Formats: sequence, C-alpha cells, structure tokens
Amino acid sequence: MGPLLLLLAPLPALAADAGGIGENLLWLALILMAARLFAPLAQRFGFPAVLGELLLGVVLGNLSLLGIGVFDSIARDPVIAFIAELGVIVLLLQIGLETRLADLARVGGRASAVAAVGVAAPFLIGVLLAGPLLLPGHGQNTYLFLGATLAATSVGITGRVFRDLGRLHLPAARIVLGAAVIDDVLGLVILAVVSNLVTAGNVSTAEVLWIIAKSTLFLIGSIGIGRLVARHSSRWLARIDHGQSMLFAQVLATGLFLAWLAHAAGLAPIIGAFAAGLLFEPLFLKDFRTPRIVAEIEPLLATAPVSVAERVKSALLGHTRHQHEHMLEPIGYFFVPVFFVLTGMQVDLHVFADSAVLAVALGITVAAVVGKLAAGLCAGKGSRWLVGWGMVPRGEVGLIFAMAGKHLGVMDEALFSAVVVMVILTTLLTPPMLIRLLASSEPTADDPKPGA
Amino acid sequence: MGPLLLLLAPLPALAADAGGIGENLLWLALILMAARLFAPLAQRFGFPAVLGELLLGVVLGNLSLLGIGVFDSIARDPVIAFIAELGVIVLLLQIGLETRLADLARVGGRASAVAAVGVAAPFLIGVLLAGPLLLPGHGQNTYLFLGATLAATSVGITGRVFRDLGRLHLPAARIVLGAAVIDDVLGLVILAVVSNLVTAGNVSTAEVLWIIAKSTLFLIGSIGIGRLVARHSSRWLARIDHGQSMLFAQVLATGLFLAWLAHAAGLAPIIGAFAAGLLFEPLFLKDFRTPRIVAEIEPLLATAPVSVAERVKSALLGHTRHQHEHMLEPIGYFFVPVFFVLTGMQVDLHVFADSAVLAVALGITVAAVVGKLAAGLCAGKGSRWLVGWGMVPRGEVGLIFAMAGKHLGVMDEALFSAVVVMVILTTLLTPPMLIRLLASSEPTADDPKPGA
Repeated sequence: MGPLLLLLAPLPALAADAGGIGENLLWLALILMAARLFAPLAQRFGFPAVLGELLLGVVLGNLSLLGIGVFDSIARDPVIAFIAELGVIVLLLQIGLETRLADLARVGGRASAVAAVGVAAPFLIGVLLAGPLLLPGHGQNTYLFLGATLAATSVGITGRVFRDLGRLHLPAARIVLGAAVIDDVLGLVILAVVSNLVTAGNVSTAEVLWIIAKSTLFLIGSIGIGRLVARHSSRWLARIDHGQSMLFAQVLATGLFLAWLAHAAGLAPIIGAFAAGLLFEPLFLKDFRTPRIVAEIEPLLATAPVSVAERVKSALLGHTRHQHEHMLEPIGYFFVPVFFVLTGMQVDLHVFADSAVLAVALGITVAAVVGKLAAGLCAGKGSRWLVGWGMVPRGEVGLIFAMAGKHLGVMDEALFSAVVVMVILTTLLTPPMLIRLLASSEPTADDPKPGA
Repeated sequence: MGPLLLLLAPLPALAADAGGIGENLLWLALILMAARLFAPLAQRFGFPAVLGELLLGVVLGNLSLLGIGVFDSIARDPVIAFIAELGVIVLLLQIGLETRLADLARVGGRASAVAAVGVAAPFLIGVLLAGPLLLPGHGQNTYLFLGATLAATSVGITGRVFRDLGRLHLPAARIVLGAAVIDDVLGLVILAVVSNLVTAGNVSTAEVLWIIAKSTLFLIGSIGIGRLVARHSSRWLARIDHGQSMLFAQVLATGLFLAWLAHAAGLAPIIGAFAAGLLFEPLFLKDFRTPRIVAEIEPLLATAPVSVAERVKSALLGHTRHQHEHMLEPIGYFFVPVFFVLTGMQVDLHVFADSAVLAVALGITVAAVVGKLAAGLCAGKGSRWLVGWGMVPRGEVGLIFAMAGKHLGVMDEALFSAVVVMVILTTLLTPPMLIRLLASSEPTADDPKPGA
C-alpha cells in the first residue's frame, strides 16, 4: 500500500516522506503558468515559445550561482523527468498527427540524402579535422567518439519551432522530420561501430546488422502493421463508444505504446511517438461521431436557407475534423513545457568559465554546425538553409553519445564539458536562426498556429 | 544531466536503468485504453465506470495469486503513484468547477451536521461498541484508533460516481462534498487527539488548536482570497493572451498550487484541488475570447434569419462557456483512471483468507456503514440514504489512520488486515448502492453526462 498512502498522507508524521510530491505539484503549477506567460511574451519579440521555455530553464537551473538552490532537486527528480519525457512524446505524437505519411514519403529521397550526409559529414569533420586540430595528443578513439557525438540529431527543438510557427506543412519541415528518424537509426549504428572499435578493436558485423534489422523492423512494422490495424480498430472501437474520448484514448495509447516499443527496440521513444502520429489518417477516424456540438446546432438551422445551413454545418464539421488533435492540446500544454524547461535546466553555466574548454567548445560547435549545414545542401533549393539549421540541434542525443565516450574512458572531463557547451549552443542557436529563415520564406494562407 | 539522459537513452548500455520508464509508458497506455473500454461496458450493466476501473485494479493487483507477478512493481512505482495523485487532484478540480460555491453554501448547515455526526457516530461506535465487542482484551488505545479509522471519509469514489452519472447538481452530492471537506479537518483533529492520548497520555490543546487554525485559515484563505485574486488575475491574464489555453493553464495551475498548499497545511491535497475548482465562477472568465469556432461561424449566418442566427450563436456560446472544464477532460481521461486502477490494485485478496480476521473485518464494516448512515439522517428527507452511503467509503484516508495506529503499536497485524478489508468493502459497496439509490430518485432534464 506504500506510495499511494504517502502521497495522500494528511499526517504530519508522514509529511517528510510526502514532501517531494508536494513540491512536484508546486513545480508543475509554476512551469505550466510560466510557459503560458512566456509564450505570448516570446512571440511579441518574434521568438517561438520554446526559446522562452529553454531560457526559463537556464535561469532556474543556474539560480544556485546566486546561492538559490531550491530548484536543484527538481532537475534530478525522476517523477518530473518522466513527465518531461511524456511531454516530448506528446509533442512528437502531435507532430506526427499533423504530418501526412504520403507527404513524408514524397520527400523520402531527399530526407535520406540529408540524413546520410548529416551523419557522415559531421562524423568525418570530427574524426579527421576537429579532433586532431582541437585536441592534439588525444588518441584516434577520442576523435571517433567526438565524430559520433557530432553526428547526432535531436528533432524535438526543430519540430517544436516549426509547430509553434505553424510551418509543419513546409517541405523543409518534412525533410527534417524524415531525416531525423533515419538519423536516429544511423546514430545507433555509428555508436555501435565506434563502441566496438574502442572496446574490442574491431567492428562486430553481427551487432551492426542486428541494430539495423530491429530498427528497420520497428519502423516498417509499426507504421505498416499499425496502419492496417488502426483502420479496423478504429471501426471496432467506434462501435463500442463513438465519442471523442475513445478516439483520444486510441491515439494517445498508441503513442505511448509505440514509444515503449521503440525504446524496447533500442530507438528513442520519440521515434515511436512520431510513428504513432503518422499511423492515423483522418480517413480511419470517420466512424467516430461528429461531436455533440454539431448535433446540437443542426436542428436550429431547420428554418435557415439550405445554403446557409450547409455552410454552417460544413464549417462545424471542418472545425471538429481534427478533434483528436485538439484533444491532445491540453495534454501538450501541460507536459511539453516541462520537457523544454528541464532541458534548459540541464545547462550548467559553470562550464563557460574555463576559457580552454570554451575555445575547444567553440571549435567543436563550428564543426557541428558546418557538418549539418552541409547536409542541408541535399534538401533541394529553397529549403537548404532551413533544413541545414533544422538538423543542427544535438540536444540530449549528443550528450548520450558523449556520456558513452566518457564511460569508455576515451573522453576526459574537459572534452565532455566542451561537448556540453556545443550541445547548449546548437540547441539555443537554432530557434532564432529558424525564425529568421522562416520570416524570409513566403508565408502561406492556410497557416494554422497550433502552438499559439 | 542525470535523469533526462536515462529517459531518452537509446543505448543498450543504459537500457537497464531506463527499463522502468519504458514499462511506465506501456502501463499508462494499457490503463488509458482499458479504462475507455471498461467505461461503456460498465455502463451497459448499469455500473459507473469507476467500478470497472476499481475491479480492473483488483484483478491486476492479484494476478500474483495466479503466479503472474509483472504488475507488482507497478503498484509500488513512485512515478505511477504521482500520476495517480494527479488524477484524483484533476478529478476534484473538475468536481469543484462543476459545483457553484453558492450552492455549496446553501447546504452548509446540513453538510456541517452530516460531517459532525459522520465523524462522531462511527468514532463512538468504534470506541464503545465495535472495539470492546470484536476485540476483547485489546486496550483502550486500540479502540480509540479503531474509532478514528472509522471516522474517516474519502470523497474520491462518491464524487466520481455522482460525476459519472451526471448528478453533481443534486443537493445530496453537494452535501457529501461539503461534509467531506469538513470531515477532512475533523479527521485531522481526531487523529491528533488520539495520537496525543496514546503517546503522551493527554491531549495537547495547543496542537489541536493549531490544526484547527491552519485548516480553517487554508479553507477561508484559499477560497476567500482566491476569489478576489481570480477575478483580477483572469482579466489580467486575458489581456496577455485571451486564448483558451491561458484560461486552462490558470485553472489547472491554481488546482495544483492549492493542492500543494493544502498538503503543506497538513490537509489532503484533493481538498486544495476542490477549493481551486470552487474559486472559478463563469463570471471571472468572461474576458477570455469566445473560441475560434464562434468567430468562424458568425459571418456564415449573415444571410440567415436573425432569429436563427441568434439561436445558433447562443447555442455555440453556451457550448463553449464551459470550455475550461472541457479542456480538463482530456487530462482527466488520461490521469483519473490511473488513480482508481491503482486503488483497486492496493486490494490484497490474501487478506480474505483468514476467517478470524474476516469475522472482525465484517463486524467493523457494519460499524463503519451504520455510523455513516446515521450521519445521513442529518441531510434532510429525500437525501438521507444517498448522503449516508455517499459518506461510507473510507478509501486511503482510513488506511492512513490505521497505518498511524500500527506505527504507534496499538494496532496489530490482524486488526490492520481487518481494517484493510473494511476499507475495501466500503469502497466497493458504495458505487452499486449509490447507483441503486440514484436510479430510484427522479432524474432531471438538464442532465449532462460529463463522464460518459
């Protein structure tokens, strides 16, 4: 009966155990409110809300520099970490729902090229150029791991910026999304190869093939089988309960399930969530009832001219067609900012104090940006810079690679700190760059702003 | 950088640490989907959805009897426990939003009488009758703690049943809600008195007064000051962003904040969440924009007869007036079932195996039910049985009291098990009894079914 009791404990005697839970409630309230307040402020200055959330996190995470340590425990709280994880899963599920699989397939070739160059170019720059130049005297293994770290892509930031600004329909957005999925697989392969080289001195072909096989199986299996199942399960579930809540549950549960499955296959959970979003096409969901509001309004239109009644009804239906997406919005408002604030909180400004580390960090950052901008060249004209910058953020994926390198003893503390600075800079630089590039690209008429 | 990294780890090397997170995703997906599937099935048999969720929990929690132990770790997972806690907080916030403070004040006298008798009657029955009769040879202190355990009320189950069946507007529902709030304060007082008697041999008047003072201060302060603040903060927040998301954030953040504050004042967090729901009256929220849909439909009605246009517009506005309540629904669909499934999972069927324990348990259960039914007599005719049964569930609050008794050494393992059985029976008996009573009471016309 353990945890439940502690949670609900109104007893002073149990208050000590339950203190963390209480703090988490306060903390979630603060993030939720701060994120909603920052969003319009950031937009007033032309920034996407995500930048406000990241900077809020940087401030909160570094208050200990001013002697305020109250937030330090939050950054390490497993409950908050899980809620952040749910946040980025919901975000990628939303992005997947707003992306049509056919549109993604149409840019498949370019996305593959971008992914391939986006992994190869930074890796080679890291191993052959940045490593020997910036870290003379370190071994080849160190350069290999640096290259692997530079090859990573984290799609959360870019996806959020495109979504905040209502530009997920741009080809550039689809290319970045597609490339990020392929990148996650390529990143796993490169990490396996590099780790094998460092530990065993050779490459285990079987292990590499196994990683490729299970990732491919996951992607093809989840989307292919999922689409077949979703078509029928939607009809079957609508028969049990044709309300919007069943539809919502089906979409969200699929997102959580595939996030788990991706994780189990060794991929990032967000890849699974994105795949779940791609599964559901409006066609599958037609069996779910037009919401209460249509049924309520329809009789009122009986005496109106037929043309008016038709137009009002179709506007109502149009508005409610994406109801399952709208139902995810509150979940997103609640969870997504937790992820970005927590990401900002991981930024330790102490790292910027060491000028030697900083010099190496800036060098690596240039390599990181140049490598991904090179990948952007494969995106076709008009999208080159957008795609290039869209691939720049390394986020948590780059850090995980660096952690592995540190664990294997090929990256020392100073290099790890430099990688952290690189991750921070690529993460914080990207939103303003994307906004500048998007502002100069033509805005389109059907420009919903779901994040606004 | 700890927890975030582990969460997002695509590395096989980190998979062991991250396994729990993956499992939690799978588990949430299962609960979400199962709850949505159980709800219509339960309704087909005339049961509220909550009974389905409780029974699902009982089954999952006792699969270990069949040798299936996979769910045992879930019942003890702190992340899942926190999400369950969020669930019951969101539920009470929703119930608070659907309750007008004026309506609650109107039944204030009867609610106070019900609360007073609802604490006094079971306590006295426990101390003077059930204790000496069922537990001969135990000391006076044991009877005192048994009485305190019987005095508890847990409003989650009853609130959920009334809400599932769309009957929150009934006077009986308001009386139970009001009495439960007062009960939480009285329960704290009684526990403090009993604990003092057991440990120090006397009652610490200062401590009792302090508990009464801070609980009263919390209730009056949060609702009184909160209503003043909410009126102005709503106008101020609407000026920054008059979208529905700001409104939603304000309501949910207030709920989480007051849940934390209640917890800090020694009360149950759900009391704070309920108070937050009571704060917001539709009047305060008028500054928030009528949603996009109204703006979209209005021009289409230009050529329609004025009367039709007016009626459609007012229907649309009426539908969207409670938009902030609707925005909480997805959060509720996601979190609330986790609480009830987890509550069901706390039921350990092993306890029913010992016939001596079972006999004592049944005796205590009768005392528990009779004591609360006596309180129902104060509710005024027409509501007596509904209010009485509405007060019956002890839920987690009764268990917390019993835990304290066990901790102080005045309740042995057998008596604790008997109390657990009493809590189980009062929790599981209540939904069917309430449904039977509600079916025989007159249904009203304006009968929304928010939980359906």
